[in-house]
Amino acid sequence: MTQTDNARIRHTVVFKLKHPKGSAEEQDFFKALMKLASIPGVEKFECMKQISKKNKFEYGVSMEFANQLAYDQYNIHPDHVAFVQNRWIKEVDDFLEIDFEPLKF
Amino acid sequence: MTQTDNARIRHTVVFKLKHPKGSAEEQDFFKALMKLASIPGVEKFECMKQISKKNKFEYGVSMEFANQLAYDQYNIHPDHVAFVQNRWIKEVDDFLEIDFEPLKF
Repeated sequence: MTQTDNARIRHTVVFKLKHPKGSAEEQDFFKALMKLASIPGVEKFECMKQISKKNKFEYGVSMEFANQLAYDQYNIHPDHVAFVQNRWIKEVDDFLEIDFEPLKF
Repeated sequence: MTQTDNARIRHTVVFKLKHPKGSAEEQDFFKALMKLASIPGVEKFECMKQISKKNKFEYGVSMEFANQLAYDQYNIHPDHVAFVQNRWIKEVDDFLEIDFEPLKF
């Protein structure tokens, strides 16, 4: 196993929804989003409110994976694929993905 | 104290340096950046490598504050102000700030 395989990954997505803030549609979206937490390999799952005025995003979701393999398996998991196709693509207005690994010098 | 004053904040900045990757200048920048961890109110300070190919940023720095007041005091702390003026503005090519609060429904 290479060093890259071993590196822990924090996967973060900031996003803006098409739904009005505080709407039932918005709540239903988060209910579906939170179900991703139960996909094997997903750790430290968090949904957050984005509060900086220096970007356009309103929410964030963050999760950690033990390594790249766990992240890859999450990406291809049927529940994740279905969520992206049935909910994310239809209900998200704009988003940005950011993935972190520990920094080593 | 209002609910907003009480809310814990995770302050994240993703960025791209002007320095070549792996250079001595880059290492020196991170040495200076890491000193921000000792400013009062800064918790869970982390420097990270940004690995998603879906954005242009190369690194990230993340820290938490107990509330907005602690965050405001960090922003105006002389060590933070000096770092921004003497290092960040000169050595950072591009960046994006993202601030998270816990999401409550």
